[in-house]
Amino acid sequence: MEANRKEITFDKVNITGGFWKEKQDLFREKTIGAVYDRFEETGRFEALKCSWKEGMPFKPHIFWESDVTKWIEGAAYFLQKERDSSLEEKIDELVERMANYQDENGYLNVYFTVVEPEARFTRRTDHELYCAGHLIEGAIAYANATGKTKLLDIAEKYVDLIDRVFREEHSAAFDTPGHEEIELALFKLYEYTGKEKYRKLAEYFIDKRGCSSRDATYDFADQEHMQSHQPVRMQKTAEGHSVRALYLYSAMADQARITGEEQLKESCKTLFENITKKRMYITGGIGSTHRGESFTFDYDLPEYTAYSETCASIALALFCRRMWLLDVDGKYADCAERAIYNTALAGISLSGDKFFYENPLAADPERNAFNESRAEGLREHLPILQRVKVFDCSCCPPNILRLTGSIGDFMYSASEDTIYAHCYMEADAKIPLGEKEITLSQKTGYPYEGDIRLATDTEGDYTIAMRIPSWSGQADIVINGAPAEYELRKGYAYLKRHWKTGDEIRLSLSMQVKLWQANPKVITSCGKAAVTRGPLVYCVEGIDQQTDCICDIRISRRSAFEVQREKLDEENTLVTLKTKGFVREKSQELYVDEPLEQTEIQVKLIPYFAWANRGVSSMKVWLLEKES
Amino acid sequence: MEANRKEITFDKVNITGGFWKEKQDLFREKTIGAVYDRFEETGRFEALKCSWKEGMPFKPHIFWESDVTKWIEGAAYFLQKERDSSLEEKIDELVERMANYQDENGYLNVYFTVVEPEARFTRRTDHELYCAGHLIEGAIAYANATGKTKLLDIAEKYVDLIDRVFREEHSAAFDTPGHEEIELALFKLYEYTGKEKYRKLAEYFIDKRGCSSRDATYDFADQEHMQSHQPVRMQKTAEGHSVRALYLYSAMADQARITGEEQLKESCKTLFENITKKRMYITGGIGSTHRGESFTFDYDLPEYTAYSETCASIALALFCRRMWLLDVDGKYADCAERAIYNTALAGISLSGDKFFYENPLAADPERNAFNESRAEGLREHLPILQRVKVFDCSCCPPNILRLTGSIGDFMYSASEDTIYAHCYMEADAKIPLGEKEITLSQKTGYPYEGDIRLATDTEGDYTIAMRIPSWSGQADIVINGAPAEYELRKGYAYLKRHWKTGDEIRLSLSMQVKLWQANPKVITSCGKAAVTRGPLVYCVEGIDQQTDCICDIRISRRSAFEVQREKLDEENTLVTLKTKGFVREKSQELYVDEPLEQTEIQVKLIPYFAWANRGVSSMKVWLLEKES
Repeated sequence: MEANRKEITFDKVNITGGFWKEKQDLFREKTIGAVYDRFEETGRFEALKCSWKEGMPFKPHIFWESDVTKWIEGAAYFLQKERDSSLEEKIDELVERMANYQDENGYLNVYFTVVEPEARFTRRTDHELYCAGHLIEGAIAYANATGKTKLLDIAEKYVDLIDRVFREEHSAAFDTPGHEEIELALFKLYEYTGKEKYRKLAEYFIDKRGCSSRDATYDFADQEHMQSHQPVRMQKTAEGHSVRALYLYSAMADQARITGEEQLKESCKTLFENITKKRMYITGGIGSTHRGESFTFDYDLPEYTAYSETCASIALALFCRRMWLLDVDGKYADCAERAIYNTALAGISLSGDKFFYENPLAADPERNAFNESRAEGLREHLPILQRVKVFDCSCCPPNILRLTGSIGDFMYSASEDTIYAHCYMEADAKIPLGEKEITLSQKTGYPYEGDIRLATDTEGDYTIAMRIPSWSGQADIVINGAPAEYELRKGYAYLKRHWKTGDEIRLSLSMQVKLWQANPKVITSCGKAAVTRGPLVYCVEGIDQQTDCICDIRISRRSAFEVQREKLDEENTLVTLKTKGFVREKSQELYVDEPLEQTEIQVKLIPYFAWANRGVSSMKVWLLEKES
Repeated sequence: MEANRKEITFDKVNITGGFWKEKQDLFREKTIGAVYDRFEETGRFEALKCSWKEGMPFKPHIFWESDVTKWIEGAAYFLQKERDSSLEEKIDELVERMANYQDENGYLNVYFTVVEPEARFTRRTDHELYCAGHLIEGAIAYANATGKTKLLDIAEKYVDLIDRVFREEHSAAFDTPGHEEIELALFKLYEYTGKEKYRKLAEYFIDKRGCSSRDATYDFADQEHMQSHQPVRMQKTAEGHSVRALYLYSAMADQARITGEEQLKESCKTLFENITKKRMYITGGIGSTHRGESFTFDYDLPEYTAYSETCASIALALFCRRMWLLDVDGKYADCAERAIYNTALAGISLSGDKFFYENPLAADPERNAFNESRAEGLREHLPILQRVKVFDCSCCPPNILRLTGSIGDFMYSASEDTIYAHCYMEADAKIPLGEKEITLSQKTGYPYEGDIRLATDTEGDYTIAMRIPSWSGQADIVINGAPAEYELRKGYAYLKRHWKTGDEIRLSLSMQVKLWQANPKVITSCGKAAVTRGPLVYCVEGIDQQTDCICDIRISRRSAFEVQREKLDEENTLVTLKTKGFVREKSQELYVDEPLEQTEIQVKLIPYFAWANRGVSSMKVWLLEKES
């Protein structure tokens, strides 16, 4: 049995430039404050004063606390790198409010304090444990960043209550969380504090899942919705609410790593395969339908109505990162990058203050406009086509904040003698390896450019395993200017040698534009191709095209693609693609028995994550592929 | 201004053989009884005893009477050709029940007699006038077929009340019907009885529509749903509930013909153009969504979720037939045939006793199975994939019965000196033309064969205008073995001569298989083609194919099509098409960056109307078109 790798968290990594530096600067300057302001305006912070009474506005919601603590967690990741007293004051004030309404016995939830205090721990569907999970994660992050442990004390006190109620007394009306999250948070708390009881509670929740007759679900849903249709080790396909599912699978991967349990590890691998081979959009989006925000069935990946929630892709990335600790295979990082660079980043505007919850793979403004024109009772659910500042259920904005703040988590892991470089970013790192600490410096224009230079400042015998993304073909690796010898195994090039200070690896990934076909069983993608370059999926937006029928655009894999760094608008520069395409001529007829003539046009593609930043426009990822 | 043509109704026509003789025999032997039995079982006939009390089963429904009178109408069309005392006994018994509960003042509706008598004429949405319309049509049909006028007396007595309440007293809570139908029925009653008041009431309802502040709609819907968003003459696009819309437009066409009003005629032409150039499936289906059973927006023609109600296509055919009386243009009969031969006929099983309400252009059994496996609150509305014996809202079964019984209505019309042959069927006819009566005999294997032989037994100077369908290309017409001289105008070949007894026209239509493209604005059909032969749209069913990925089948317009009359199953023979197709090879991967190899397969197509007669199978009308 192969030993697991240890995670190298973002606190060991400093993003120094490139793509993610720009994002982190934007998030620090704009997103943290924008999310805070929206939460302030919508009463989420005011609620923590616990002064709401019937008849007052801003009635607290059962999951509002999770919005608050996710924002704290996200903000803390930025504070970890750069303290900010004014930001800390805000957080300290929120922590103070929480301390004030925490029950003597440790209980903490505004809704169940001011609205329905008698209903605590009676309804599995009511997100109490989900909120507790995010409280834990926020508390750890803030303690880690600032050394301030007040929130952590609050969290631990609450977890102690939960432990007693659920694991000892069984005095709640249900056994396992309706919305998973606390499980992975408890493992994190266990690893942060070293206290066994947290690990045991996490394992209890995971092992008990699907085995309790007391675990109800919503009236409108089935047990699959909450992944409690079977014991977790029997689950072979990703089912139900996709965010819940991926938080569960992430915790299962934690448990497999911590306990070394092979069966659970195999379950995680099986679920990963089901997702990535049958139930995932090429953008790394998961959850094909808004009905239950859920997975559907194999190969069901509709374009226009893709739910593909921002949070679900973030959760998928979290799962992938855990999987590569269990199993060295480049497919996990490939998948994490798909999810991060495409769906998760599409979840936020380039301006850093507006958000998508759903991330469809095609947009038809005419359908949305018609839908909005109808009486309410005749409308269908459609993804919105412009990002908004806040949602009623506003989980995604703070989630993208915490992902970006901790993006360095995705760079490295380490075994006894090997450093694994998973996702490439421009950053310095100090990585514990056995007794040593290895100092690395990475320079790269990734994801737009395929050159990665990784220099070490630490002499010694160790291995650096560089991930070769599956889309890149043959890897070209040079060390100090000379072709490197390496062993290629499952998507990693193992460079084993006696490293000297200043040694530099130069990895050149082919950034060739690729056209992808979907499996013939994906009925909406037959006859079509999606375009990628590096880890980025590209799309066409109507605003850029020489036709208003973007669904009729045909592209060819034999045509050249012009790759160009250019301005998208006043603020944003990115890499666009241009190629030759064909569209049929306009017709007054609805049906014609002679094929319409095709005209050549120039087709411009932009990264999928950048769509919908220039007003409402049609959009499409899957384009007709011209075979001839 | 061109004079309008007179309709030649089916009572002037006897179907003697071929496609429609088979259908009529089947309907006479099976469908009339099957619909009767289902209505009997579901309490629709029992309800007419008006003995229902709170707590009893089979609570009468507001539109049950329309099911009964539509069944009577359909049955009467068969009685017109062949009296049947046992069938008449059943009808007489129903008429007796209706006579018994008809109010002194003429009012007739079971629901508003036994359930909510106080609510008569208070809710526009409650189908009272719709039921009255079908009562009128059933009564005329039964009187015409049998000479028995009791039902007609009932209908006229009720209409007199309606006339007083709506046109004189305005004592109802609304002004115009929520579900149109009575308008065209009133014109029919006017033409049958010659009584002006019925015409005036019909015109009142049509002219008042969209002009009344008292005309409410459903809470869940908008005024478009009932075509009362504007005065009818201002309506340029087909909106709302598609059956209601087409019944209204049919009545508008009646009014334009009867009154000679040009503006109304132009409105009808505008609406016809909007439907057929922008809002109609290639199968003649209309109404793209189940939400409000309604039209949506231009070029919105999704395949899998097409609502395309059977009744809507029947109503479209009724509208077309009225339009060709107003305007000589082959496009109306082209459209009527599309609707009849494809969607309307798909509405009934080949066995004659099971029905579709919705007629999608593609079927994905996996989606339906998944959907049915979910908790009810997570399900989406999907068309069913197997016909059923009866619906809760069972308008379609008796509607297809009355269409088939009166299919001869679609054969001819006549002006002073010209007989127009619109839709071809094997039938004898006696057509009043000026002072004369022209005896015609038509022999044809239509819609499977393109040869039509039309013989006259009446000597004289007159014109026979033979429709040349738009799909047939150049017409080949021979009279008594010699090439005929004719003038071709707007889809009709005018054969003017001194006809002698025994003269025979032989029209040969090209039955070449055609591949049609949809307008590039139809986003779901880009890159695809639909196959037709003659008036029939073809489809592939999974059960017949050498692949289980029918969405991946590519066909080419350069490939030959083998046309073959063959058995579909033990009972049914029809004309199938076979051609070369290509599908990609199977893959274990979800996404591949090298195109999957394509394999040649034989693709078998069957007429769309015959789908879903051999168990649940995937189905598709629009297939990928291979350009190379």
